[in-house]
Amino acid sequence: MRAVQLVEPTVVRIVEVPIPEIGPDDVLLRVSAAGLCHSDLHVVHNPDRIFSRPVTLGHEVAGTVAAVGAGVRDWVEGDSAVVHLCWSCGRCRNCVAGADNACLRGGRRAQPPAPGLGPDGGMAEFMRVPARFLVSIDGLDPVVSAPLADAAMTAYHAIGHSRAALTPGAAAVVIGVGGLGHCAIQILRATSAVRIIAVDIDPDRLVDARRHGAHDAVPAGADAHTEILGMTDGLGAAAVFDFVGNDASLCTAAHCVAPYGVVQAAGLAGGTAPIAAEPRTGVGWPWGATFRTSYGGTRTDLMACVALAREGHIAIDVERFALVDALQAVERLESGKVQGRAVLVP
Amino acid sequence: MRAVQLVEPTVVRIVEVPIPEIGPDDVLLRVSAAGLCHSDLHVVHNPDRIFSRPVTLGHEVAGTVAAVGAGVRDWVEGDSAVVHLCWSCGRCRNCVAGADNACLRGGRRAQPPAPGLGPDGGMAEFMRVPARFLVSIDGLDPVVSAPLADAAMTAYHAIGHSRAALTPGAAAVVIGVGGLGHCAIQILRATSAVRIIAVDIDPDRLVDARRHGAHDAVPAGADAHTEILGMTDGLGAAAVFDFVGNDASLCTAAHCVAPYGVVQAAGLAGGTAPIAAEPRTGVGWPWGATFRTSYGGTRTDLMACVALAREGHIAIDVERFALVDALQAVERLESGKVQGRAVLVP
Amino acid sequence: MRAVQLVEPTVVRIVEVPIPEIGPDDVLLRVSAAGLCHSDLHVVHNPDRIFSRPVTLGHEVAGTVAAVGAGVRDWVEGDSAVVHLCWSCGRCRNCVAGADNACLRGGRRAQPPAPGLGPDGGMAEFMRVPARFLVSIDGLDPVVSAPLADAAMTAYHAIGHSRAALTPGAAAVVIGVGGLGHCAIQILRATSAVRIIAVDIDPDRLVDARRHGAHDAVPAGADAHTEILGMTDGLGAAAVFDFVGNDASLCTAAHCVAPYGVVQAAGLAGGTAPIAAEPRTGVGWPWGATFRTSYGGTRTDLMACVALAREGHIAIDVERFALVDALQAVERLESGKVQGRAVLVP
Amino acid sequence: MRAVQLVEPTVVRIVEVPIPEIGPDDVLLRVSAAGLCHSDLHVVHNPDRIFSRPVTLGHEVAGTVAAVGAGVRDWVEGDSAVVHLCWSCGRCRNCVAGADNACLRGGRRAQPPAPGLGPDGGMAEFMRVPARFLVSIDGLDPVVSAPLADAAMTAYHAIGHSRAALTPGAAAVVIGVGGLGHCAIQILRATSAVRIIAVDIDPDRLVDARRHGAHDAVPAGADAHTEILGMTDGLGAAAVFDFVGNDASLCTAAHCVAPYGVVQAAGLAGGTAPIAAEPRTGVGWPWGATFRTSYGGTRTDLMACVALAREGHIAIDVERFALVDALQAVERLESGKVQGRAVLVP
Repeated sequence: MRAVQLVEPTVVRIVEVPIPEIGPDDVLLRVSAAGLCHSDLHVVHNPDRIFSRPVTLGHEVAGTVAAVGAGVRDWVEGDSAVVHLCWSCGRCRNCVAGADNACLRGGRRAQPPAPGLGPDGGMAEFMRVPARFLVSIDGLDPVVSAPLADAAMTAYHAIGHSRAALTPGAAAVVIGVGGLGHCAIQILRATSAVRIIAVDIDPDRLVDARRHGAHDAVPAGADAHTEILGMTDGLGAAAVFDFVGNDASLCTAAHCVAPYGVVQAAGLAGGTAPIAAEPRTGVGWPWGATFRTSYGGTRTDLMACVALAREGHIAIDVERFALVDALQAVERLESGKVQGRAVLVP
Repeated sequence: MRAVQLVEPTVVRIVEVPIPEIGPDDVLLRVSAAGLCHSDLHVVHNPDRIFSRPVTLGHEVAGTVAAVGAGVRDWVEGDSAVVHLCWSCGRCRNCVAGADNACLRGGRRAQPPAPGLGPDGGMAEFMRVPARFLVSIDGLDPVVSAPLADAAMTAYHAIGHSRAALTPGAAAVVIGVGGLGHCAIQILRATSAVRIIAVDIDPDRLVDARRHGAHDAVPAGADAHTEILGMTDGLGAAAVFDFVGNDASLCTAAHCVAPYGVVQAAGLAGGTAPIAAEPRTGVGWPWGATFRTSYGGTRTDLMACVALAREGHIAIDVERFALVDALQAVERLESGKVQGRAVLVP
Repeated sequence: MRAVQLVEPTVVRIVEVPIPEIGPDDVLLRVSAAGLCHSDLHVVHNPDRIFSRPVTLGHEVAGTVAAVGAGVRDWVEGDSAVVHLCWSCGRCRNCVAGADNACLRGGRRAQPPAPGLGPDGGMAEFMRVPARFLVSIDGLDPVVSAPLADAAMTAYHAIGHSRAALTPGAAAVVIGVGGLGHCAIQILRATSAVRIIAVDIDPDRLVDARRHGAHDAVPAGADAHTEILGMTDGLGAAAVFDFVGNDASLCTAAHCVAPYGVVQAAGLAGGTAPIAAEPRTGVGWPWGATFRTSYGGTRTDLMACVALAREGHIAIDVERFALVDALQAVERLESGKVQGRAVLVP
Repeated sequence: MRAVQLVEPTVVRIVEVPIPEIGPDDVLLRVSAAGLCHSDLHVVHNPDRIFSRPVTLGHEVAGTVAAVGAGVRDWVEGDSAVVHLCWSCGRCRNCVAGADNACLRGGRRAQPPAPGLGPDGGMAEFMRVPARFLVSIDGLDPVVSAPLADAAMTAYHAIGHSRAALTPGAAAVVIGVGGLGHCAIQILRATSAVRIIAVDIDPDRLVDARRHGAHDAVPAGADAHTEILGMTDGLGAAAVFDFVGNDASLCTAAHCVAPYGVVQAAGLAGGTAPIAAEPRTGVGWPWGATFRTSYGGTRTDLMACVALAREGHIAIDVERFALVDALQAVERLESGKVQGRAVLVP
């Protein structure tokens, strides 16, 4: 079968590989769609990311069950499913509590293993998936469902962790209206009555943001926080979701969050949050606010995203590419031209 | 009456002033004791802290009711009480929700007014207190109760906001075993079954820490986080309470908190937290952890501290000074020699 | 001025009384509208409800400020406001925590005093209101805002207390689509992505329920729970809100709540909940579920309802009556003919 | 090997059976101890409890690993462990969220399967256990650790679900000071600063209660709630844990819980809770309180109990019996003579 692989640091190729073998607790998934994410670029461009062997990329995957291992009870051939992002150990104290994305097996600063970033992922015709990492999407279109696995779930988890702040009439800021951001806006709209303020450097994306339910749209930049404070009685937003994560976006976040509000940073752009332990002069970090780096989500979060999609609350903008056009898709994502999510369709 | 006043920036004097007048909703409190706190030094040494008039210091105050205003129903002469730290507006959306310390009246980065830092405080023979800021200490010694108002309550609030992390067997780190820290250790001991690790630069304070219930004691310094990680399976502490708040203590906190743990910074030493939005190499900030600047507490928190003191769970170490010896007390606090809390007894 | 008073047990009259005097912390409100509620019938028909003097009814009141007491700072003549339902003491441990509806001043089983049920209420041209019980409705129509005070707020509080159960795709049952129920449906729709199942004995109300956003409508009766279980995989609804509270409605609630779900009973019809401590045979109460009697709400809840109304998320169905037609309005409510809320307009 | 089996309804025998075979994901546990619980009596005396074959009893089990299946990675021969009570499916939406005790596989009113109540339990020399249901007790005595699996964990779960009510100075009532109750008292003492009031019909048990940390002890009976109200300002206890669950104990619970407090019923005596939807005259159920039937706990809860035992916070009173004396142990438990927990030691 064909697969998109990282064959050595920074080098991606479309290669011919055998169909994966499955163990007793695995499912063989015929891939319907695999989303392309900034994390993929992050891996591709980072020479430190050396795996012991070529790795098939793709961590946002949906498809249909083609075969099941001997010990699998909950799935039969033909079922459609989305693949959970966090392939957690299932045994550590966090996993046992349902916190897949907080799996401790890899140590203090590791992420849980993710398909496409260790185990082979879904940019291929078939994929091996441990059965417990499948969530049913029965009745949904797999192509638009694939990005639920990361774009929607990561946004949902960050929002879920901020739930107490999202009271009616409070403001929520979404920085970065790409794959995650445009999901976040829809999730906020469906699950709360907050006023949503979108921030992006691209005017077209701000138009998208309004289409997806944002009440206000603010161009990114050094004055963004001033504009947001002006919309929020000078007090700031109860919650800020930063899906960019560079110095500039984190600075905006720190300067527009309300006292006792919350900032969730889920972007991987490598920035540093400017947080002084004592708020003083200027506009910076207020008392009582919390800052958190949010990674991925739990299977419960993914199930919630599937439920939202089923009820029509999440409609993911998708640009389709054939698997063989994977490199063009990468280029287009890098140039910032993808609207919503690029999805490879084998 | 005599009062300890900040008469101009950086200048403290003991002066003779009239007994304060009270309004219909006020109580006149005969001061039994007033604690001396690092916040006082902070104000005294900060030339920016200009008030429109001399201000009587003292924001940790206990005493007995000497007179009540015409509209006061809940207090009678002779009642003993401690004075709440946060003189909140009572009307903003946070006050109405019971979050006195999150009062929004002063704007995005203000603290709520505190006696001794705006309105006249309690380093005097008498003090005017709006009745709603009194909490009964009936049956407790006012001298050891005065520091409940800040040293205990501020610690209690930070701990309360971390409650979900404080499961049996988890580790909690307390950085800085002074007034707040020695209360925090006792509160953790009384209200949870966590393993308490104390950190301080002063070996004598580490002895105090153990006496108050800490299980382990670690000298502050560049290696402190390594030692703490060694005690916690390499994963770090579920909660870190930083009562110092300088660059060094915040660095230790960021490097020893567990994934999905919490850092509460309640110290005013002006440091900056080194938090990258994406955890990467090295030992720094992990995924999912939260950082928060914690200020003061609510009246509910203060009531809880009084309950803990009443049951013998908080025993505050106190060094007593006469009101006229206030300047010596300040000096002794500055030199780091006070064990527990310095208290002025008019 | 004219006022609708309970002059002796079970006797309501429209009488001429003086305009109320106000104290230093009070506001004189010119009443724009006063809602009529089943609690009013409850009081009127209950011969035990003896007050020491005639009482002006009306606990759902909105109007404009006509005069302010000497100590009132936050309100000026002409401001429009809704009156909070729970006139709590402001001093007990629950009030201090923001839980107005849990005020302990009256003892273990008392409700906090409510205007119209002790202090004079708003079925009159003017009403005395302590300033702290006003919430601004600036820009909203007072006539449709009056029922926010009880019909919306009581529903909002019950829903807010169930928030953890209201995940996307979960089912929520609303029993009784009257004043509270039709608000509950709209609040659930605006603040969650649950599937809403309405239950009522009146087919017209089930039509209303769908118009307000219910996904399904089930006739009340002995089979209602069976139908609901059929809609929810046999497991039941994550949350059930019973705004009737008689034996039959409570029985439906107990038999259709999911394991680890929640029942909130806010109706006053005097029923008893059939809850066995050990679930066994039959369809009754499941493991892990919680049952709660929910009364009123907090000022924070009322502020949230005003915010929802301002954003267009709550549109209360109102039937208007002149103050002099109060007795006809009572009759119509008793006969179950009011759609949404009956409102008296002085 | 020898095993204690329910061979037909109400008939228990000590029989000779083969050592169980294990599958690839199982562990063979050499049983060190198996606790005897009122649930066992419940099963033994209930003629409805028909299993398809004789069942080895014993759901509170600790031992050492004797062999591991081919797919087991986390356990090696010689490890010591306690067996989790709830053998949940691991796949339903509750299991995935970590709520083992809320497993939905069996339907709306089922408990998750428990060893000894479906699958063979631990009143035998060996036991088959799926590896994921083991929790390490490395360093602890297995004999006193066995009752952690139910007596401690069930109490811990009920307490954990009430955590918000357990503020310093609040009162918590423990009804029934047997296996679960004497654990509950110790857990409350270790993890909170509440005032603990124990209730039992047996004066000796009230002595035990005080020894384990209860502050007050009240004889069970029709006046118990009056006495408790007298100890709690007439307002009642913030939390009530009923480990009996008959009509009388539930009546006491309903009449002594505070407004906005919580009752957790974990006893299986088959009583009904007298909860009116509207609090009125008399002393009964107050506004805002919650009632919940609490079953078992999660693996997270069991891990917490092991941590508490390791730190010396839970010391379970144990009466040891040889496996062959199982029937005498049953008799002694039925007569109410066991102090703490009866434990069979093969």
